[in-house]
Amino acid sequence: MFRPKTVFIDAYKNSSSVIKEFENQKIEWNSLETLATREDIDVLIVASTGLVSLKPVIAALEMGKKVALANKESLVVGGQAVRDALTIGQPLGAELLPIDSEHSAVWQCLWGEDTDAVKELILTASGGAFRDYDLSELADVTAQEALKHPTWLMGQKVTIDSATLFNKGLEAVEARWLFDIPLEKIKILQHKESIVHSMVAFQDGSIKAQLGEPDMRLPIQIAITHPKRAANEPSAPLDLAKHGSLNFSEVNHEMYPALQVALEAGQREDTTMAAVAGADEAAVALFLSGEIPFTDIPKLLRHTLENHQPTPQPALDDSLKAEEWGRNFVTESHTNRSYAG
Amino acid sequence: MFRPKTVFIDAYKNSSSVIKEFENQKIEWNSLETLATREDIDVLIVASTGLVSLKPVIAALEMGKKVALANKESLVVGGQAVRDALTIGQPLGAELLPIDSEHSAVWQCLWGEDTDAVKELILTASGGAFRDYDLSELADVTAQEALKHPTWLMGQKVTIDSATLFNKGLEAVEARWLFDIPLEKIKILQHKESIVHSMVAFQDGSIKAQLGEPDMRLPIQIAITHPKRAANEPSAPLDLAKHGSLNFSEVNHEMYPALQVALEAGQREDTTMAAVAGADEAAVALFLSGEIPFTDIPKLLRHTLENHQPTPQPALDDSLKAEEWGRNFVTESHTNRSYAG
Repeated sequence: MFRPKTVFIDAYKNSSSVIKEFENQKIEWNSLETLATREDIDVLIVASTGLVSLKPVIAALEMGKKVALANKESLVVGGQAVRDALTIGQPLGAELLPIDSEHSAVWQCLWGEDTDAVKELILTASGGAFRDYDLSELADVTAQEALKHPTWLMGQKVTIDSATLFNKGLEAVEARWLFDIPLEKIKILQHKESIVHSMVAFQDGSIKAQLGEPDMRLPIQIAITHPKRAANEPSAPLDLAKHGSLNFSEVNHEMYPALQVALEAGQREDTTMAAVAGADEAAVALFLSGEIPFTDIPKLLRHTLENHQPTPQPALDDSLKAEEWGRNFVTESHTNRSYAG
Repeated sequence: MFRPKTVFIDAYKNSSSVIKEFENQKIEWNSLETLATREDIDVLIVASTGLVSLKPVIAALEMGKKVALANKESLVVGGQAVRDALTIGQPLGAELLPIDSEHSAVWQCLWGEDTDAVKELILTASGGAFRDYDLSELADVTAQEALKHPTWLMGQKVTIDSATLFNKGLEAVEARWLFDIPLEKIKILQHKESIVHSMVAFQDGSIKAQLGEPDMRLPIQIAITHPKRAANEPSAPLDLAKHGSLNFSEVNHEMYPALQVALEAGQREDTTMAAVAGADEAAVALFLSGEIPFTDIPKLLRHTLENHQPTPQPALDDSLKAEEWGRNFVTESHTNRSYAG
């Protein structure tokens, strides 16, 4: 059973279920920002969803903390602000470490390498629940079908985002900010077994890859023990001979139009990515509640991309507003049927 | 055309063909040892066959040179002596760098890592010319068939050694000395495409691999430009989607008994490996000249392993003598028909 030393509850949140689960533990009510910047924290592991942790992450980095990030949205929406905080905190020891399996793979492949020698980051994508479907079948898939990820067991939002491959677009943008590498240098390669977690191609043509069974416990452990590797294997050892073959293919962009929207939005480096990320939150919720077909998710994202009035070189608040605008825009577009669904 | 600044000719060697080829170049007659220890050498690239370069390599390392080694035999026979020379030369800047594609892959995967955290080195093996043959067909294969390597274009000796997989045993022993990792931690995995050049498994279960088209120009370039990666791709970029799949399987030891002999000999860390390496030189020559069937190569190696009187903790000269003994023992065993061929 999970027995933390202390449980923190956001002072502003309803907390009765948490209190019940940890009834014999010490509980403190405080803001996430106060928690994230505590003196006695060595490594801050951020595994929240959405944007609730964005400002606490920024505060922790500015204070010189080591922050291990499982949350994508903070970087997708507030990437520039998080990097600025890292720059401020670096003289005090701040580090920004990935926990996502793809980003942990890239990170491990970059150890001992010069970032300037990177030609491409190659993020692998399983292809999600519908990779073996026909394009014509996608309009009729149910939420239940979409929630069956072929290789990873994850939350609802990210599983749907994997089925549309929007998730891989978020990961590309996340990688752009984590590793400070332009989005043009970040490629997506379909790899159905999720064994090669991602790769780095260098300017001399050499490619390094990181492999393992799909199991989040390894990247989490690596983020905690870095710069050492613990003498502990959290998951079953990879037996490549047993797997037999690893398969790779180009992404079929007709099957995954949401990925293209994410990459186009990310390229702009204004508020568009934040707007589209917000739009996706709303669109996925509409699909999960049965209000729109699966194939309307990318349509709503494209509609958002085309209608957003971007702010160039956005401050953090501009991005947060754009994210909210995107969510509302999708809800309104759905209510008014004002998109080509 | 290849136009070196100066061509060195071993003072003791017949050299008329070299003189003809480089007739407009500066030519110097000197010993390899004098050449290897010249003041103006930054990186010594050793691409000789056999043991001719062993003592020059030792001399260069002791002087603090950076030595890039494409030659296996020096380490297989004189591994301990080469490591001792490296220890002496390290304060002066000595480095021992691999050029073999497998060892270059392992090396790249170890950059930024702690050698103590290594669980296993996984050397990949194409399986050589007869990987798709039946065991029963091997007795009748010709030298011409054996010289058709499926993925690499190489010299005769190494191509035959690839067909028997003895070469992979030599590479395992080479890796043992290059990376100072016990032979028990070095595994062989069959991988027919020769795209994953080798891998390192760490104690936390993470695996790193290095990939590329099979082309020796990349590992050579990396040895020269290290610790930088040149902005130059010597071979065609790897397109994994075009390859489609990468395949892995356990080595079928019944098909490749020579590999087992090499690994058993290497484990002993006395003069046995040198004796077996010498035996293989002679056995491959006998096969190439049509005097023994392909399947007698491993038999002669096993015969050598069983009859060698090893010297424990051998000095370099003990190993050199054992290598010569192994060569002679095979020739005699063949002449006298004193092995179960």
